[in-house]
Order: sequence, then structure tokens, then C-alpha cells
Amino acid sequence: MASRLGQARPGAVPSGAVVGSCLAEPHHDTGPSYLVGHRVPGAVLTARLWVPAGMAPEQVVLRQVVDGEPAITLMKRVSHHEDGSWWHGPVRLVNPLNRYRFLLLEPGADEPYLWLTAAGTVNHDPADATDFSVLSEDTGPDWVLDAVMYQVFPDRFARHTDPSTRQAPAWAVPHNWLDEPPVAGDATAAAWYGGDLDGVIDHLDYLQGLGVNTVYLTPIFQARSVHRYDSVTFEHVDPLLGGDEALERLSRALHERGMRLLLDLTTNHTGDAHEWFRSAVADPHSPEASFYAFRKHPDDYAAWLDVPSLPKLDHRSSLLRDRLLRGPGSVTARWLTEPVNADGWRTDVANMTGRFGQVDLNHQVAADMRATMAEVEASTGRPLWLVAEHGHDASRDLEGTGWHGTMSYAGFTRPLWSWLSDPDPADALTWLGIPTAIPHRPGSAVVRGVRSYHAHMPATSVARSMNLLSSHDTPRTRTVVGSRDAHLVAATALFTAPGVPTVFAGDELGATGRTGEHSRTTIPWALAPDGTQHHTELADHGSWGPVDRAVLERYQQLSALRRALPALRRGGLRWVHAGDDVVAWVRTHPAGDVLVVLARGAAAPLRLPLATLHACGTTAQTCFDDIEIVYGEAGTLNLSVLGPGSAIIALTPAVPERGPIH
Amino acid sequence: MASRLGQARPGAVPSGAVVGSCLAEPHHDTGPSYLVGHRVPGAVLTARLWVPAGMAPEQVVLRQVVDGEPAITLMKRVSHHEDGSWWHGPVRLVNPLNRYRFLLLEPGADEPYLWLTAAGTVNHDPADATDFSVLSEDTGPDWVLDAVMYQVFPDRFARHTDPSTRQAPAWAVPHNWLDEPPVAGDATAAAWYGGDLDGVIDHLDYLQGLGVNTVYLTPIFQARSVHRYDSVTFEHVDPLLGGDEALERLSRALHERGMRLLLDLTTNHTGDAHEWFRSAVADPHSPEASFYAFRKHPDDYAAWLDVPSLPKLDHRSSLLRDRLLRGPGSVTARWLTEPVNADGWRTDVANMTGRFGQVDLNHQVAADMRATMAEVEASTGRPLWLVAEHGHDASRDLEGTGWHGTMSYAGFTRPLWSWLSDPDPADALTWLGIPTAIPHRPGSAVVRGVRSYHAHMPATSVARSMNLLSSHDTPRTRTVVGSRDAHLVAATALFTAPGVPTVFAGDELGATGRTGEHSRTTIPWALAPDGTQHHTELADHGSWGPVDRAVLERYQQLSALRRALPALRRGGLRWVHAGDDVVAWVRTHPAGDVLVVLARGAAAPLRLPLATLHACGTTAQTCFDDIEIVYGEAGTLNLSVLGPGSAIIALTPAVPERGPIH
Repeated sequence: MASRLGQARPGAVPSGAVVGSCLAEPHHDTGPSYLVGHRVPGAVLTARLWVPAGMAPEQVVLRQVVDGEPAITLMKRVSHHEDGSWWHGPVRLVNPLNRYRFLLLEPGADEPYLWLTAAGTVNHDPADATDFSVLSEDTGPDWVLDAVMYQVFPDRFARHTDPSTRQAPAWAVPHNWLDEPPVAGDATAAAWYGGDLDGVIDHLDYLQGLGVNTVYLTPIFQARSVHRYDSVTFEHVDPLLGGDEALERLSRALHERGMRLLLDLTTNHTGDAHEWFRSAVADPHSPEASFYAFRKHPDDYAAWLDVPSLPKLDHRSSLLRDRLLRGPGSVTARWLTEPVNADGWRTDVANMTGRFGQVDLNHQVAADMRATMAEVEASTGRPLWLVAEHGHDASRDLEGTGWHGTMSYAGFTRPLWSWLSDPDPADALTWLGIPTAIPHRPGSAVVRGVRSYHAHMPATSVARSMNLLSSHDTPRTRTVVGSRDAHLVAATALFTAPGVPTVFAGDELGATGRTGEHSRTTIPWALAPDGTQHHTELADHGSWGPVDRAVLERYQQLSALRRALPALRRGGLRWVHAGDDVVAWVRTHPAGDVLVVLARGAAAPLRLPLATLHACGTTAQTCFDDIEIVYGEAGTLNLSVLGPGSAIIALTPAVPERGPIH
Repeated sequence: MASRLGQARPGAVPSGAVVGSCLAEPHHDTGPSYLVGHRVPGAVLTARLWVPAGMAPEQVVLRQVVDGEPAITLMKRVSHHEDGSWWHGPVRLVNPLNRYRFLLLEPGADEPYLWLTAAGTVNHDPADATDFSVLSEDTGPDWVLDAVMYQVFPDRFARHTDPSTRQAPAWAVPHNWLDEPPVAGDATAAAWYGGDLDGVIDHLDYLQGLGVNTVYLTPIFQARSVHRYDSVTFEHVDPLLGGDEALERLSRALHERGMRLLLDLTTNHTGDAHEWFRSAVADPHSPEASFYAFRKHPDDYAAWLDVPSLPKLDHRSSLLRDRLLRGPGSVTARWLTEPVNADGWRTDVANMTGRFGQVDLNHQVAADMRATMAEVEASTGRPLWLVAEHGHDASRDLEGTGWHGTMSYAGFTRPLWSWLSDPDPADALTWLGIPTAIPHRPGSAVVRGVRSYHAHMPATSVARSMNLLSSHDTPRTRTVVGSRDAHLVAATALFTAPGVPTVFAGDELGATGRTGEHSRTTIPWALAPDGTQHHTELADHGSWGPVDRAVLERYQQLSALRRALPALRRGGLRWVHAGDDVVAWVRTHPAGDVLVVLARGAAAPLRLPLATLHACGTTAQTCFDDIEIVYGEAGTLNLSVLGPGSAIIALTPAVPERGPIH
């Protein structure tokens, strides 16, 4: 891991030089550098468009759909340099979600008719689906943009209380702390390691040392498994975890440190031992009978993927929605207010919630939760986050009125894996639901996919989504990519891509895992002399093998960089290079753009002129790299890519050169 | 115009021969040949996938999103030929709209990881937006699939009654029948030619001779302009057109011939002289005051594109929705029942209806109309059509629960124009709202655009949309393309593409027009000895110049072919070739596939092996062509493209060779 400072020499670059697959394209994004102005309904923002040298449009048309009808404005060219030109045009915040794109008209050029959408350029009239999109008002919590999150599976993070002193229920099969978790089958849900919530409190120094400021707990309600997605009640925290008071203590401890707490709610189903379901089964005329979709009472009912122990909730029941989602007495409100005061919900199986056959109340459920949370926000003054579990394309559910964001498996985890995966794995892992090995795809294809996917939603929804390298539902990224080097590249992506970096506990130590269940490893805390777990010290070995401290240090370094560089937290995104083995992007922000380069292996040298990166003859500074970077004579970055590695390079802003805003 | 029969000689084709830009791709569509089975909720259909020689997937995965979660099935290879293989897999009709796509896995191939969506193949994980999509139940009217429609602008089609005997209102400026319509400005709305509804009745033989079975009338309610989009009431037909009784007579006359009638309703706005708006202005406490969005009563209110004479309707008013949309007493119901019994509505400015600032009730309006129409259908037994005016991307409004279809400017007119436009026009026309000349794009780009756009909606919505070469809101296609030859090519597209061929009155005679208003030409009926308009005979000259009888004959021929070939009315769509100057597709149908070839000019010869068109060594028959077609030795079609022209070629089915359905 080499880290050093470099200084670029200013200078001109031959105009039109082709330097990477994306820099020859015009660029716009909806971040604060390219879409300028205060975002409130009625505002008129200035869209800035960068057109690189080599393109000289006669006209640039800004097309925005307003009240359902396209409105056309001609952009103004406000400045012109040898490396390109800047164009400005108005974007009106009229509708809840405002969509626009650009048409570059250059008669006689190779491409005389070129649309720029958020998915890139096309030489034909495109569908509106990938237009740039911006909410009239971003009512999502601001703190989420600065969050670094840590996912805790409560049974496996840390023990505060000796489990032998707890009354273990019949379903729980006690395990030793360093036992390898079962890979699959019924044993996975029963394997009880005895982690608890006070154990989380014990290790908050460790988390803060990692740069974490938000803790996400998978379910804590009483249940009949260690994953607790089969809750028996939404009224009480499992006594195995320390009960309601432990959660109150944890929340208080977090808030005292300025940290936040995200809880996990199953809105799609309950366990079949849930008090609601028991009432429903006992009496078809009970109020709770309407909460479930019985085809024939009491034995035949809708269930999550037809698993009978997880009966599906039927949101056609207004009473259910009152109890679960709506108003101050609802489950949704209750845990976000005194005494627990959690800071938001991760919604389990959000993608299926309210969807069943001809019924689709999904957006209604999300809107109900969001409205309830808005009421809590108004009364407490604490902004709250609502994030959806969603394993595939969530874009249609992320357009502003429902979930703030999603677990971005589709926009982050899957594409990253499909690029960084071990091409010759010892363990053949399946492809997250598809019965084939995890593919190993070229960066060009992967970037096209990510870009197209993100184009389907506002960037604010991407920014409030969880980026994960792994979770309790996936193999560990370390196992997927097969090496420390590739893991470190993945970590750079995690902390520099748009979205909330979310560390699944143990990833930072190089933990491995072949399935979601197998990935539910414990943290190998060193033992204090009295046999309790040390609060910050780690043993040398976890259940999976040696602890990789180099990874831990890198995570600490990367989260510090994310904290230091606003662009990484709040910037727009510009794709710079998408080669087979090297991928690069810039996070764009008025406080300074930041270039991120990832390499999965040795590749041809990469030459990036600073001028076309809009640093306009200014300086660049390497914040971090383990790729060989040489700052060239003519204001270029020359990257020698000898193997897997990554770099983060701050580009000094040159805002005045971009032309005035009108 | 050459038309002849040809017979292909059966024979093998070298496998893997590259013959056109699309035939090397795997193919599936949601038409009856490729998605087999009766479409009712709960059904399991068989998706058939054709994989051409040159691809040999090890596995094919069918991924369908069910209840919000991807479900994976492995396809079965059911047959294998030297020119390719057939694969089958199940598509479940579970949700209202069911989305699926295919993943072809071929380790070691150039593209080992290839998704097929309705937009084509991509080598990365795609967004779900372009997945194949099929409604669980297609409740749209069946007759629309067989419709050939004729658009009548009532003031300009035919006069039955001498206008000098009518009491002309103050706004109307009388014009002689063969005057050229004004091009722009206030004069356009006032130019009164005196066409009437009995005039339409007079010419039904003419329309049936053209193959027309459905008449679409632009608004007929009393108004203060000749276009009548500024209605003063929804209760009465304009006396200038003959009043209510004339509409009843026309509807009866149509129905007696087995023809149908589509009316035009403005749901977005009324005229400022509308009885509702007058009540609203007179009394802020009147019920009608809630129908409009007054910012400050009475002078400041929302209006269509801020034109004060067209105040916008505010669908937040439940009373408005009752009067206009909902229930048997509504305007929507009233004209679809006795005594008029119209067969559906074209909804004006449907794209903006209910959309205004932070309000979006568009889908609610469409659902209200559809529900009311379903009630009328249930009580009358007559299936009704609801089609939306929409000038741009309508896909999000066409997913099954609202409008059945749209005026497909975005999916048909615009792309066709951007391919066939006169590259060196005498008159510079603007690009339907964009201040530039109509572009002249290569077929490859245009086909990509159409394919991507159509991929965003179910094929049933495309099939129930109006395809137009021109309308009262556009220049005439004849003017856009600049020649009879190119016009004839456009006509072939009109009658062979998915969607309802809709002839704007006069297009079939070669009428010209530079703007929508200028295109509102009269039909130059020959005059009978008594000075009245002849019912079937045409004069030699219209207001625009000579009548082009060759075009009329071609329209007649094409509509007869559409009637004769089920694939053209009800088939799926497979793209075959997308070159700069030649575009070809196949309409796929169990009763026989039909190949359509369009050329905008001379091009390299095109060689299409019948085997890869799934005619599998069988015969082809030219139904119509003005391109030189030679049937080659080895079961190929060799097309010599010496200039603009088109061909329609029926391919004899070979269903048994496609493998059994399980």
C-alpha cells in the first residue's frame, strides 16, 4: 500500500486527444457542480453541460417534460476553451420528479444528432426512462449523505452477557463463539452464538475507529430463529439480545456519540408464531384474520416464497396498515420515538411487500411509512431514513415518494462482483439466485450496466441507498474476489461510489463466507483476563481463519478519506474510463472533484489529461494509491497498472473557468 | 408498382451465414407464435426462444419477476437444426403486468453472458424497464386489432349541407372548399369550410373502398373554432356540423355497415366560453369553480400551455370527475350509450391531463374513464376503445390499467419521418416541437430507437395505439418525405407495423401541408351537376395541387393485404435488418409470418435466407413489391434495392418444426 502526495504541473493538452472511453463524451450530472441552484419547488436551476473538444454543436437543446409535455429550451454556450466548451440552460422544478435531457445538433459531424441522457449518448430518439431526473424537493435526511454504516447481525457481533446465564429457548442450538457458521439448511437459523445488544455498546470505540457513524441492526424483535425475520411480536426486543432496555441503552449510547441507529422491520410477512398470526388462526373473525391472505382458513394462506412458517401480510387490510404503518400508535412510529428513538427503518423484503397476484400496494405501504415517519420527524426534529431491501431492479420504487433508497445489490454489489470475481474460484458460488457461477465480465460491460441502471432513478435515491460488499444474505466479497488485493479494490469502490458505504461486520477483517448464512461470522474479539470480550482488541484468528489487519487499516483510511472529501459523500458522478480491467470515475463537487481509479489486474498504461477532467490546467493530489501514478509534463496523469490496485486523486477546483451562472 | 407472385425453392442455407444485422440475434416476442397459450390470470404460457446457429448456449435462464421478486427457470432446448435451436420455458401470468427476460450462458464464447430483453441483447445486467412484458389479461377491445382508421377533421372532409344555409357564428370566417388552409396564426381556427357530419355519411362507400372500418372524428362539441378543442359544452354537437341528430345518423350509418366511431374528448381543458367555466367565473362558490385551478378568482387560473382561452381542468375535484369521467351520467358514458353509441374515446392532451405542478392524477383519470367504459361495455356488450393523445414517450402511461393505447407519434411517426425525411427539403419544417429541421437518420439508429421505445410497454398497448403518417397536428408526410416514392414506402410501414393504421383524411390522395393547421386540407370531391359533392368521385386537384391516384390505389392495396394477412394485424414483431437505407421486419403469427422490407433509396443487395427467418426450408410468396426480388437457389431471398420501394412477402409457416409445446 503506497500512499504519497503528487503535484501535477499545469499545462495544455492537445485538444481532442482520446484518452479514455468516456472522456470524449459530453458530460452532465445532477450533482451540485452540474445542476446549480437551491432545490425547492418552483426554483429554476442551471444545468451545465461540458462538451469536449472534438464536438462543436451548432445548437444544444434542453428538453424537459413539464406537466407531462416536453418543453424545449436552447442552451447557451457560455465559454469555450481549447479542450471543450460549457453550455448552460434552465431546469425548472415544477413537478415532483423533473426529467430532462440534451440534444446536440452538429450538422456534418459523424454524429449530427446526439442525445445525452443519464445513461450516456445515443444517436436516436431515446425513451424517457433514462432522462436526467431531479426531485423538486429532496426531503430525505441529510445525515444519510455523510453516513458510514456498519451492519450488525446481533447474534454474531459481540457478547456482553455470558449466554449460559440466559434462558435459551428450545429452538436455539448453542454454539461456541469461534465455531464456523453452518452453510445451509435448518441448522443456520438455530445456530445460537449469544451475541447481544450490550455487546454492541461495548465496541462503539472500535466502530468509531473504523469511521462508522451509523449502526444497522438486523431484526431484534423476539422470534424463533437467530435471524429473527420470523418475528413473534413487533412489541418487544428479544430477551436473548437483552430485551427492550438493552435496545434503549444502545440507542442512547449511539446518540451520545453522535451516531445513529437503523432498525429492520418485516413488512412483507411475520413468523407463524407471531401473535397476530396466532389470533388470525385461532379465530377467522378476529381483527388479525384480515392481516393475512387466507385462501382457506386456517391452513392455506399466502406465505413468503410459499414457506408456511412466514405468512405473508395482506396490506389490503386497513387495520393492518394502521397497526403496522400508519400513525403514532403504529409499529413504524413506536420504535422511532421514545424511549428507543431509532433513526430509521430498513424494510425487509420491501420488493415483495404488498405485491401478490393482482394486488400491488407496494407504493402505498412505502408512502404510508414515509408519511408516518414525516410525522415523527415533525414532532421530534430528528430526520429519519427509510431504506428498502431489494435484490434486483428497484428503480421504479425509488422515484421519490416512497423508500428513500434501497440496498443496492443491483446498482453496486452485483456489478462490482461481476467485474472483480475470482475468474478461477476454488469454491463455485452461485450468482445470487441464478444457477451459474458468478460471472467475470469486462469493465466496459459492467459500467454500461451500472450507468443504465442508475439512470432510471434520481441520484438522490442512489445517494440514500446502501452500498454493500456483502450482507447476511450473500457470500462474503472476500470469498467472491478470492484475494486481499481484489478485496482492497472493492473497498475503494465501497467508499467512493455514490451511496452509503455499509460494512457488513467482519468484512473489514477479511472474513469469508460462501452463502449468506455462512457469512454470518462472529467477530473474533480478543478475550480479556476475565473471559469477556475485549472492547477493541482482536484475536489473530476468526472462525474463517486469520484476521487481515491490512484490510482493517485500509477501511479506516478509506472512511477517513470519505469524511475529508465532500465529493465522495455529496458529489455527482462522471464516468471517465471503462476498460476491461481498469475503471475510473470522477465524483464532481464544487469543493473539488475527486478521481477514483480501480484496476482488477495489469493493464495498458492509462493517460488522463487533467484538462478534460475539468481541472482545467490546475493541480491534482494523490490522496491514496497502490497503482503507480506519474504526473506527466502536459498536465496529464499517467497510470501504470501492474496489477490489482486503486487510487483516489483530488483535483483542485477551477470553478471560475466554467463560466458564470445566469 | 410491380406486383407478382414468386415461389422460393426449398433448400439448406449455410449455417451461421451473416445476412442482416438482426438475424444473428436470438429472438423472442410476445406475439402468438412466441408466447403460446391462453392469456388469463393464473395461466402458464410457453415462451419460445429461437437461438440462431453460431450461438450454442450451455444454459438459458428465464428470469421473471413474480410478486416483486425474480424467479428463475432453466429453459429446455426442444429442438436443434443446422440453422439454430428452439428453447422453451414457462411464463406465469401472476401479476397484472408480467415481466421476463432471458440469459444465454455460453462459456468460452465471444459473449459468454448475454441477456435478451425486448430491446435486444446486452452483455451486462440490464434494468428491468425493457423486459418482455405481458398482461395477465388483455381486456382491450379485440376489434381494434383489425381496425383500419380514418381521421376526419369534420370541417374539412365533406359538405352535405350548403353552408350558406347555416347560421354562421361570429368567429367563423367562411372559406371556399378548395382554398388553401392558413398555415399559422389566429386565422387557422376561424377558417370555416363548412364540412359536416352528414358529409361523412355521404362518403362511407369511399371509405369502405379504402378498407377503412373505423372513423375517428376530431371534436364535434359546440365550440368557438373549427378545431373545436375549445368546447363550450360537452352536451351538444355543434349545429354547424348538423347537431346531435347528425351524429346519431352518422353513428347509425357506420354501425349498419359494421364500421365503428371514435370521438374526441378534451379532458385536460375546456374553452373559456364553456358553460362550466362561465359558471366558475361568475361564482367562486359555484360547484363548477372547483373544476378549474384558480390562482386568483376570476382572472388568474391554470391553462393549457398558459393559453388563457383554454382553462385547465382540475381533477382534484371529485365533482368534476363525476361529471366528466365517472358513472353512467358522465360525459364519458353519455356519448358511448344511446342514442349515439360511439365506440370509444380519443383523449385530447391525455399526456398533460391531471398533471400540474405537484399534482399528478393522470393515471386516476385514465382509470376512471376505463372503469366507466367497462360499465358501459358490460351493459351494452360493445367493447370500447380508449386511446390517448401523447406526443412523446407514453410508455409509463400504457402499462395496462389506463389508456389502451396512444397516438404513436413517438413509436411510429417520429422515427419513420426521421428515416424517410427529404434530406434536402424545399420547405424547412421543424421537428415536431424542436427548433431544427426534421433529421434524416440512418435506419440502424432509427430501429434501435423504436425497438427500445416499444420495449417499454406491452405489445398489446402498441397494437391498440394509432399509427399515423400525419394528423391535424403535424405536417403531411407527403411534405416531409418530399416524393411519391417515399410516401409509398411510408404507406407500407403504416399498414404493416404493429398498431392501428390511421389515415388522416387526404393523405391517401397525396395531400401536402407544412404545419398541422396547413395540413387541414379539404377532400376535393368532384361536384355533381347540382353543385353538391359527389359521394365517391374525386376532382383532379385539391387545394394543394394534383390528386395522386397512385397513392390512393396503393392505400387500397395495402389495407386489403392487412385484411388478408393475420400476421399484419395480430402478429409479433421480429427485426430482421436495420441498415442505413433498408429496414426489414417480420410479423410473426401462427397463420404465417410476413416479411416487410422498406428501402428509402438504392442500397447494396440484401440476402435473406428463409431458414433463418424460421420458414425452415419452406416457401415464400411475394404479396406486393416494388423492389426487385429474386428467389435464390438455396432458399434465399435476394433483394436488389435500386431506389425507394418496399415489399411484403408471406412466409409459409412451418410450425411443427419448432418443437412441441409442453
